[in-house]
Formats: sequence, C-alpha cells, structure tokens
Amino acid sequence: MDLIARLRAGLPGEALLTDPDVTGSYARDMANFCDAGTPAVVVLPRTVEQVQHVMRTATALRVPVVPQGARTGVSGAANATDGCIVLSLVKMDRILEINPVDRIAVVEPGVVNAVLSRAVNEHGLSYPPDPSSWETCTIGGNIGTAAGGLCCVKYGVTAEYVLGLEVVLADGRLIKTGRRTAKGVAGYDLTRLFVGSEGSLGVVVRATLALKPEPPQQLALVAEFGSVAAAGDAVCRIMAEGHAPSLLELMDRTSVRAVNAMAQMGLPETTEVLLLAAFDTPDPAADLAAVGALCEAAGATQVVPAENAAESELLLQARRLTFTALERIKPAMLIDDVCVPRSQLAAMLEGAAAVAEEYDLTIGVCAHAGDGNTHPLVCFDPADPDEERRARESFDAIMALGLRLGGTITGEHGVGVLKKDWLARELGPDTVELHRGIKQVFDPLGLLNPGKLF
Amino acid sequence: MDLIARLRAGLPGEALLTDPDVTGSYARDMANFCDAGTPAVVVLPRTVEQVQHVMRTATALRVPVVPQGARTGVSGAANATDGCIVLSLVKMDRILEINPVDRIAVVEPGVVNAVLSRAVNEHGLSYPPDPSSWETCTIGGNIGTAAGGLCCVKYGVTAEYVLGLEVVLADGRLIKTGRRTAKGVAGYDLTRLFVGSEGSLGVVVRATLALKPEPPQQLALVAEFGSVAAAGDAVCRIMAEGHAPSLLELMDRTSVRAVNAMAQMGLPETTEVLLLAAFDTPDPAADLAAVGALCEAAGATQVVPAENAAESELLLQARRLTFTALERIKPAMLIDDVCVPRSQLAAMLEGAAAVAEEYDLTIGVCAHAGDGNTHPLVCFDPADPDEERRARESFDAIMALGLRLGGTITGEHGVGVLKKDWLARELGPDTVELHRGIKQVFDPLGLLNPGKLF
Ligand SMILES: Cc1cc2nc3c(=O)[nH]c(=O)nc-3n(C[C@H](O)[C@H](O)[C@H](O)COP(=O)(O)OP(=O)(O)OC[C@H]3O[C@@H](n4cnc5c(N)ncnc54)[C@H](O)[C@@H]3O)c2cc1C
Ligand SMILES: Cc1cc2nc3c(=O)[nH]c(=O)nc-3n(C[C@H](O)[C@H](O)[C@H](O)COP(=O)(O)OP(=O)(O)OC[C@H]3O[C@@H](n4cnc5c(N)ncnc54)[C@H](O)[C@@H]3O)c2cc1C
Repeated sequence: MDLIARLRAGLPGEALLTDPDVTGSYARDMANFCDAGTPAVVVLPRTVEQVQHVMRTATALRVPVVPQGARTGVSGAANATDGCIVLSLVKMDRILEINPVDRIAVVEPGVVNAVLSRAVNEHGLSYPPDPSSWETCTIGGNIGTAAGGLCCVKYGVTAEYVLGLEVVLADGRLIKTGRRTAKGVAGYDLTRLFVGSEGSLGVVVRATLALKPEPPQQLALVAEFGSVAAAGDAVCRIMAEGHAPSLLELMDRTSVRAVNAMAQMGLPETTEVLLLAAFDTPDPAADLAAVGALCEAAGATQVVPAENAAESELLLQARRLTFTALERIKPAMLIDDVCVPRSQLAAMLEGAAAVAEEYDLTIGVCAHAGDGNTHPLVCFDPADPDEERRARESFDAIMALGLRLGGTITGEHGVGVLKKDWLARELGPDTVELHRGIKQVFDPLGLLNPGKLF
Repeated sequence: MDLIARLRAGLPGEALLTDPDVTGSYARDMANFCDAGTPAVVVLPRTVEQVQHVMRTATALRVPVVPQGARTGVSGAANATDGCIVLSLVKMDRILEINPVDRIAVVEPGVVNAVLSRAVNEHGLSYPPDPSSWETCTIGGNIGTAAGGLCCVKYGVTAEYVLGLEVVLADGRLIKTGRRTAKGVAGYDLTRLFVGSEGSLGVVVRATLALKPEPPQQLALVAEFGSVAAAGDAVCRIMAEGHAPSLLELMDRTSVRAVNAMAQMGLPETTEVLLLAAFDTPDPAADLAAVGALCEAAGATQVVPAENAAESELLLQARRLTFTALERIKPAMLIDDVCVPRSQLAAMLEGAAAVAEEYDLTIGVCAHAGDGNTHPLVCFDPADPDEERRARESFDAIMALGLRLGGTITGEHGVGVLKKDWLARELGPDTVELHRGIKQVFDPLGLLNPGKLF
C-alpha cells in the first residue's frame, strides 16, 4: 500500500493535502533563501491519535516527517525535504485550560502566540514570550525554536515557560514529560531537551505552560544616540545599575528609515541609533526617568518619554516591524541572530557596521539590546550573483565575530538548515557527537526533520 | 597497575584519601536510611585536569565514580557504591568571575551556595536559588539535584540560573555546554539535561550562572490557621490575586513545636498551621497588608506582620530549621518531597495527616506552599521494626497521593536511591527507556553514579 493510501486509512479526508500546487506552498518557512524540497503530502491532523497514525505510517514506510507550525521561522527549520510528509499542527489549535491558581495553561501546539496571550489576559494573567511574529507564530513553533522576544530581557524565553509536554515519538508512541506543578525534578529534563530541538526529536502535541500575573501596562521611552558605542554604553549602565526594564530594544538608522518608509511611523531619522526602554513596574515614570538620565550620561542626544501607554505601544510596533520593513529594501535578506554578552554589544554592533562597509552592503541592525541579542539584517539582490556572494560572506563574518566576542551564533532563531555548519563550529565535534547520540535515542531511523540542526 | 597507584600518578598526594576510617565518612549523604556502599578511595581534585585524570583512570579500569558535593542531599544520590571512587568536588571552590553588566558569575562546583550569595551581594546582585541547606551545600550539588529553595516561588529554581557548564564526561573528555549570553539556542539544551541528572551524565567542573539585581530586603508576616484547608485556601487566593511573594512557606504544628524546642524561637504553638509570606517589592508593607487581608478572608485566626527586616529574617530561619528540628523527635526521619499543583495543596496536606493517623506516626509537614511543594517528614525509630515498616509504607502512601493529585514524587530533592521505584511509576516504561538511552550516550560503560535514578 502506498504512503497516501496508508495515511488516508487513519485520517479524515480534509486532513490530507496532495495537490502539488497546494503542498508546494508548505515547502518552506520565512527563510526563503534556504534550500527546500518538495513534500509528498501535507497532513493537517486535529487529534493526537491522528499524529500517532502519521508517525506510525512514516516509520513503517521509512518516510521523513517535517513538523510545521505557522512557518514564520527564519532558519529553514520547517522546510520540507523531498518526498517528506509535512505534518502541519496548525489545526490543533485549542486552548484546553487556563488555571489562574496554578498559573498554567494547557494548549495544543497550533495555538497562535497572540491568541493565547489575549486569552490569558482575560484572566489577569500573561504568557510572556512574545516573538515579534507573535500575531501568527504558533506555540508549537515557539517550542520548536525556543523562541525569544521583546520582553525576554525581564521575563525570559519560551524555555522558561514550558512545564510539561506531550510528545509523539518517531515511532508513534506518546510520552509525557515534565509536569503541571511549579517545581519538579523527577528524572532528566526531557521537557527542556524538546524545547529548541526544531522538530528533530518528537512532535509536540500538547504543552503545559507557566503563566505570570499580568503586569501593569508598560511605559516606554526612546533615546537617540550618535553612535552605537554610546548606545551600548547606555545599555551596560542600565543593566549594571540593577534596572529591570520590560524591554530594551535597539534600532539603527537603516532600520528606522525602513520602518518609517513602510509605516509612516515618524521615528527620528537624524540619529545613528534609537534605544527603546520600557518598564511595567509600579512606578514606570520614575524608572524611565532614571534610565533616561543614564542614557544622557552615556551620551544620548535626546530622550523622549512616551506620553502614555498608546504611544508606548506604537514604539513597540515600530520595533516589531523592522524585519518586514527591511525586507522591502532589497529582494532578499539574510537575518542574523548573534547574541553576545551584553557588555560586548557595542563591539558587536561596530563590528557589524565594519562588515557592511567591507562587503559594501546594506546591513540594518535591530537588537534585543538588553539581552545582547543582535539581528544584523543583510539586504541583497539574489539576481546579482556578486552581491549574493558578498551577502553570504558577510553573514558568516558576523557569526565569526559573535563567537570571537564570546557569543552564540543564534540567540533565538535556531539553526535549521541556515546555520548547520556554524552550529558545528560553535559546539565542537564532541558535543555534536552527543547531539547525534541523543537524536539516535529518540529517532533511530532518522525520520524526524532530517537534515536540520546537524 | 592498581587503581590507587594509577590515580596517584596524576594527582597530588593530598588529593587522595585511602584510609578506610576517613573514606568511610564519605559513604553517604543526609539520607542516612538509604543504602550506601564502601568507597575504594576518595579523590579531592583541585583542577579540571585532575578530574579528567580520575575519569580516564576510572574508564580504563572500569571503576564506578560517585561525584559528591557537600553531601547534604536527602535522597542518597551521593551515596557511595562498593569499590567506587568518591569524587568530591568540594576543593574546587573558587569563584572565578562576577560580572554585574552581564549579570553572571562563573564558579567552580565546590563553591558553597551561601558563599556565592554573599559574594554577589557585594556587587549589588543576587543568586536566588536558596535551598535551606544553603550555608553548606555546593553549587555543584545544587546543579546535580536541580535544587529549589524558599525564594523559588518568585525567582525559580537552580535550573533557571544555569547558563552554561563545563563538564568532564565519563571517558575524561571535557565539553562545554550553553553560553555566557542571556539567550542562546544553538543545539539541544545539554545544559538543562545535566541539571538534575544527579551526577549520572558527567562531572560538572565549572558553571556560568545568571544573577539578578539584588532586590530590596524582604518583609514577612506570619498568619495562623486552624486548619490546613484554610491555609491552603489562603495560598490559592494569594496566587489567584496575582501576588508575587518572595516566599510563601508553611509549617504545621509539629514542625513549629520542634523548632521551638530546638531553638527557642517563640513561634505560636497554639494553632494548626503557620503560613509565612514575604515580599521584596518596592512597598512590601502594602503587599503584606493585602495578603494579610486575604489570609483573614480565608479564615486566619491571627496575622502578625514582622516589625522589621531582622524579625523577618528570624521567621525564615525558623522555617529553615524545620528538617533539623524534626530530626530530633525520633532517631530517624524519612523526608518526602511531593509537589502538587498549588490548587491541590490543602488536599495534599489533609491526605498526609490522614496517612499519619492511619499509620500511627508523627509526620511533621513543612512546605514551599506557594509552589505546592510539600515536605511531609516521617519520624520513626529504626530500632522498632514495626514502626520502620509503617514509616516506609506511609512514605509510599504519601507519594501515591501526590501522583493522584496530579503532582510529582519529587519537587526538588531528587530521586537518588530513595525514590528509584517511584520514578519508574511516575515516568512510565517508555520514558524510562529514553532515560536509559540518554545515559548510554553519555556514559556507555555505566560508570558514573551507577544505581541512582533508574
Ligand atoms: C517578522 C518576524 C519576526 C520574528 N521575531 C522573532 C522574535 O522576536 N523572536 C524569535 O525568537 N523569533 C522570531 N521570529 C522567528 C519565528 O517567528 C519563531 O521562530 C517562531 O517560534 C516560529 O513559530 P512557527 O509556528 O512559525 O514555527 P515554524 O517556523 O513552522 O517551525 C519552527 C520549528 O519548530 C518545529 N515545530 C513546529 N511545530 C512543532 C511541533 N508541534 N512539534 C515539534 N516541532 C515543531 C518545526 O519543525 C521547526 O523546526 C520572527 C519571524 C518573523 C517572520
Ligand atoms: C537541612 C537541609 C535542608 C535542605 N533544604 C533544601 C531545600 O530547601 N531545597 C532543596 O532543593 N534541597 C534541600 N536540601 C537538599 C540538599 O541540600 C540539596 O539537594 C543540595 O543541592 C545538595 O548539595 P550538595 O553539595 O550537598 O550535593 P550532594 O548531596 O553531595 O550531591 C547531590 C547530587 O549531586 C551530584 N553532584 C554533586 N556535585 C556534582 C558535580 N560537580 N558534578 C556532577 N554531579 C554532582 C551528586 O552525585 C548527587 O547526585 C536540604 C538538605 C538539608 C540537609
């Protein structure tokens, strides 16, 4: 019996897409410069049992499976391989429980981040991880990539909020990891092993997530700097003074211009760097005043506090639009995601600027500055082979710089197919060997998302 | 060449203890009712190279190795096995770096928790995880057990503070995991896999830890309740209202009396349950007033705010003394560590009381109430075989109850040898199989801390 027929035996008709025109549209995530294969079929299960059926079928026929969320990933981690089953979890999108006493939510993987956020807000709770793609990306994808976001500088990343998982293994067995309790140390931390594993160890079909009390609305300021060195210095002062901003973001002039051009935001374009800081503390104005003073001490030319929450929200929106806005500058863009110790932030930004100059390219930079997590965005035209070559080389030069500064090649976007070679460089052969060993334990036939990570 | 001679070849004389009277004193941790074997030798390395030499020797001769910190563990996880090398990391006790801008510390594993805490305080920083044993336990041991503590209800457990590790593998290879950056998702989360692995996957020789800004001094209150149901209700109300206490602890009457008897603390003995709550917020008095009102609404008979920070500290000390104080009631004590969803706290405590009655035993209970993490402490006399049998049965009954309530058999103390059978019950055969597979990847010869966990 062939693949489609066997799949069909355990799935409702509408869960199976086989029209190549349709399945082709599931071939890749947002990293459109990465290789992607042609899926044999796309499956959109609605139940755990259907996922198990898919994995049992895949195992029986030795067909690779690529789990997918909303495909907003930017490293090709959700890209199809030739002949694979694309297993899209977007239809498993129920919020099963929100519990204010235990401060947890239990969700299916296809729940969109913003949908969950708003739902828990109704209970006076918050689900902090907020990747800029939060209006579309799924919790399953956030778990797959261990996604970060804007508020991580204060509240941490996805990994910190995943208490327990239900996972379908490559052979179709269903296991539970973790717990719904606040603490628990029974055995190895398999939950965290799955978080960030990019669909290579199992298919997440349910997640128990920790929630926080909803903080007061945040208030933001924007500070203008004539140099990245000054902005980096301000970040260091803010953190060394013990402040806990709810976000601390940076946009360079290229990013600001792109956002203004796209969305008429009216951000100041006359300066090198904007730093956005926000506080959701009991007295945000006082905290902003203190941080504003530190910015000035570091050389800010202008510090403008937002008048109110609405104005603050606008600043955030501007920052969130950076990727999309910069993508309009040139037909293609390589998104880097180098995270350095925040004391090295200025060095990293200066280095990225030097790379842009050396390779004669437009490289816009935005950053989760408080985390030292920078996104140099290399804009290029793939129709110009020389420019593409320079873009790829500059992309590598930026990662090499990050590693030299004590950083990592990926702060939050993951490895996918984009950074496989670099993962090996960062980890070294012994650690890669351990990765392969672990992969072998969970997926001995190598069927889950093959060719990603390592 | 024999074991001792081979070890000696790569170690300074004073790093090797062979006198059976001395090595015997390294045989066990604080779970003195668990089995322990007789070590062949105790090694106290001072350098990473010395640890590597020990592991290479152990691999060459197929000798088991038991890593040890301060042996304050309470599950027998650091207990020797017959003929093993005890590898005590307590002499590797240097704090290598404290960095206020990056908010990290880099330490050797033998650093005592309280020593690190005080050292980072000097820089205006805090290292939150604070097991009650903090004056003696080591960071290596905290990592081995994924230790919790009092302030975890607000600040989380050890796992949340370990950014990166250097680990000597069973065969002597040295690997690095994680990072010194605030974020990073390069590859599987091996760091978290080591945290809580109880010395079974590798020997931690260096750790990069995240620090927080030092919070304001906390202020506490104590509330008295006539029943655990009322106290549990208070905890639920406090958490459901979105409060973020820096601790929320519970002591039952048995614990209170024991602490008073040992340390003349003058805690109120006339009531069933004491709840301690503290806040380190900008306005702790206001938060305490709100929480006090919630306690009263839940039926507290008395709410007494501490006059000042010193009085608050005294309340904490009382709570921290509970284990030690209860140990004096009877010659032996079984320490349970069941964590339930906090909505189930009252049910758990009532169930534990019912178990005490059924088995006719003294079972004192203290709890990290805000986390739902309870410590029923079963006091017994091993000289009385029937009492010992009842003690062991009640200990099991308590874990069974915890699992029925949706909890875990161990919130923070770990599995060791004490709860091996129960780990298998909690995880189930498929997950245990995955554990064995992972163990096999890191330690194919099964030399590291054999017989623990599973
Ligand atoms: C405009 C824009 C802004 C962004 N901003 C941020 C940001 O601020 N921070 C950040 O971290 N990222 C950001 N990203 C990247 C991306 O949004 C995140 O990586 C997100 O987590 C991906 O979610 P997704 O549902 O789209 O997953 P996908 O891209 O579909 O998949 C991501 C990975 O997870 C795996 N996966 C998905 N679902 C499952 C499952 N159920 N079980 C197992 N594996 C699964 C896939 O195989 C793949 O490896 C941004 C992307 C864009 C386009
Ligand atoms: C009075 C008292 C109060 C306590 N309160 C708490 C509490 O509030 N919260 C809590 O979580 N625990 C508590 N505990 C338990 C205990 O203190 C903790 O588990 C602590 O983390 C153990 O640290 P240690 O240095 O004593 O480690 P040990 O007991 O020596 O070892 C613990 C485990 O870690 C492993 N290990 C040690 N060092 C290394 C290393 N370098 N590399 C790899 N593995 C290693 C060992 O093999 C063992 O498996 C308490 C204990 C007592 C006696």
